[in-house]
Amino acid sequence: MNFEDYRAKKILLVEDFLERVLPPISNPPSILHEAMRYSIFAGGKRLRSLLSIATGDIYFLSDSVIVPPASAIELIHTYSLIHDDLPAMDNDDFRRGKPTSHKKFGEAIAILSGDALLTYAFFILSKYPQEEEYAMRKVRVIEEVSKASGTPYGMVAGQVFDMENTDKNRKVEDIEKLHSTLVDLHSKKTGALISVAVKIGYIMGGATKKEEEFLDNYSKNIGIAFQIVDDVLDEISSQEKMGKRVKKDREEGKLTYPLLFGVEKSIEMARDHVEEAKSHLEHFGERGKILSVIADFIVDREF
Amino acid sequence: MNFEDYRAKKILLVEDFLERVLPPISNPPSILHEAMRYSIFAGGKRLRSLLSIATGDIYFLSDSVIVPPASAIELIHTYSLIHDDLPAMDNDDFRRGKPTSHKKFGEAIAILSGDALLTYAFFILSKYPQEEEYAMRKVRVIEEVSKASGTPYGMVAGQVFDMENTDKNRKVEDIEKLHSTLVDLHSKKTGALISVAVKIGYIMGGATKKEEEFLDNYSKNIGIAFQIVDDVLDEISSQEKMGKRVKKDREEGKLTYPLLFGVEKSIEMARDHVEEAKSHLEHFGERGKILSVIADFIVDREF
Repeated sequence: MNFEDYRAKKILLVEDFLERVLPPISNPPSILHEAMRYSIFAGGKRLRSLLSIATGDIYFLSDSVIVPPASAIELIHTYSLIHDDLPAMDNDDFRRGKPTSHKKFGEAIAILSGDALLTYAFFILSKYPQEEEYAMRKVRVIEEVSKASGTPYGMVAGQVFDMENTDKNRKVEDIEKLHSTLVDLHSKKTGALISVAVKIGYIMGGATKKEEEFLDNYSKNIGIAFQIVDDVLDEISSQEKMGKRVKKDREEGKLTYPLLFGVEKSIEMARDHVEEAKSHLEHFGERGKILSVIADFIVDREF
Repeated sequence: MNFEDYRAKKILLVEDFLERVLPPISNPPSILHEAMRYSIFAGGKRLRSLLSIATGDIYFLSDSVIVPPASAIELIHTYSLIHDDLPAMDNDDFRRGKPTSHKKFGEAIAILSGDALLTYAFFILSKYPQEEEYAMRKVRVIEEVSKASGTPYGMVAGQVFDMENTDKNRKVEDIEKLHSTLVDLHSKKTGALISVAVKIGYIMGGATKKEEEFLDNYSKNIGIAFQIVDDVLDEISSQEKMGKRVKKDREEGKLTYPLLFGVEKSIEMARDHVEEAKSHLEHFGERGKILSVIADFIVDREF
C-alpha cells in the first residue's frame, strides 16, 4: 500500500473512533459538544495519531489497541490549539481555514471546550483498550502523555517559553546560544507531543529498552525537523495554503530557524534531521518503512 | 483523635505531598510554577482530599497509597476555580481572600496554569502509588476522575449549565421542575468531584459492590448538601468571611436553593441530606465515623 492510501485509511479509523466516542451534539450541554467537535473535525494532518499507529504497526498491534490512544493524542493537540488561539494568548482568528473556536463560540466556551478535550483524552487513555492485560501499559502511557502535555518538560511549559520568546529588537549575535534556546523551546512546545505519540505506539507494543531508544531518537529528530519546517512555512507560505495567519513570527519578534539561519539553510537542517531520524529505524528493517515515509512527509509538506 | 486534629493532620499530608511533587518555582518556566503554587497553596478547605483519605481509612490504606490521588483531586478543583474566575467566565477578582490568578499573573498565565494543574493531576494519578499491584485500580481511578471532571457527566458540563442558568427576569413558578434542573446542574458542577473523591478512597481500598453503593449514596447526599450551603452562604455571608465576592447569584439571576425555597427551608433541606448521607454509613460502624463527622462539617461550616 502506498503512503497516501495508508494515511487516508488510518485517519478514517481515528476520526471514526472519535466520532463514536465523543459526546454527541444532541447531548446537553450541546454548545460545548458542538464546540469540541467543531475543532476536532476541522481537518488537520493527524500526524500524531499516524505516528502512534505506524509505531504500533512495528508490533503488529490491532486497531482496537492502538487507535484509541492514538486518537486521544489528537484531542490534546486540538485543545492546545484552541487555548493558544485565545485573545489572551496568540489572539488568532483563523485556524485550518475556519474561524477559531472563540471567534465562533465565544471565549468562555472555547476555554471550556479545550478543558473538556484535555480531560476526555485521559478518559480515553484510561478506558481503552478495555482488556485487563493492558492496565500496566495504559498507566505508563498516561504518565508519559501527562508529562509531555504539561510542565516542566511538556507542552504547557513550551507555550510559556514561546510567549516569553518575543523581542522586536532582537540582535542575532550569539547564534549558538540562541540555537540551543530554540531547540529547548521547541522540544517542549511541539517535540514532546510528537515524541509521546511514538512512545504510545511502542509502550502499547511492548518494545525492548533498546528499541525504545531507537524510536526516541527517531521521534526527537522528526520533532526538530517538524518545527523547523513550521518556522519556514510561517515565513514563506500563504494564509490560503496554511489556513491560518502567516508571517506572525517575524511580526512578533519570535526567535525562529529562518531568523537565525535563513530559509535555505533551515530547510537543509530539517532534511539532515530527517536523515538522522531514518538512520535510527534501520534496526526495524521493513517494519520501520512507514515511519520512514512519515519522516519524509514532514519536510516535504506544504501545509 | 477529634475531627479538627484529624483534619489538620491530613491537610498537612496533602500539602506536604504537593509541595514535594509540584515543579519548584526555581525551575523554568518560573512564572508558570509560581502561578500554579499561588493558587494551590492559597488555603481552601481541602474537603475533597479529606473525603478520599477518610474513605481510604475504612480500608486501612497507608498514606503512601491514598495521599497522592487525594492530592490530585485538589489540583483539579483548583484548576476549575482558576478558569471559572477568568474575565470570560465569572470575572472574579478575589478568591480565598487573595487576588485571583489572572489578576495577579495575567490571563494567559492563568489559563495555562489551570491547564498545567489539570494535566499534573493525571500525572500524579498515573504515577502514584508506584507499586505494580495498583495498576488496575489506578486505571479505574483515572477513568472515574476524568468522567467527573469533564463532559457530559462532569464538572465542565456543569460549568456550562451554570453559565446558561442566568435569567434576571426569572419567575419562580414550577418549583418542582426548577428544583430538578438545579439538582441536575449541581450534581455535575460540584457533586461529581465530591463523589469521585469518595470513589478514589473506595477504589484504592478495594471495596465490595455493596459498599460502593453505600458510599455513592453517602457522597451524592453530601454533594447536594454542600451546594445548598454554598448557595445559602452566597446569600447571607460576607466577602470578609468567604474571601470572595458574595450575593453574586442574586445579581446574575441564578437559580439557587434560597431563591426557590428561602434560606431557612434550604438549610433544613441540607440537614436532611446530611442525615440521609450518614444513614448510608451504618454498614461501616466505627470505621465510617470520620465520614459522618465530615458530613456534619459540610452544613455547619461558615466559609
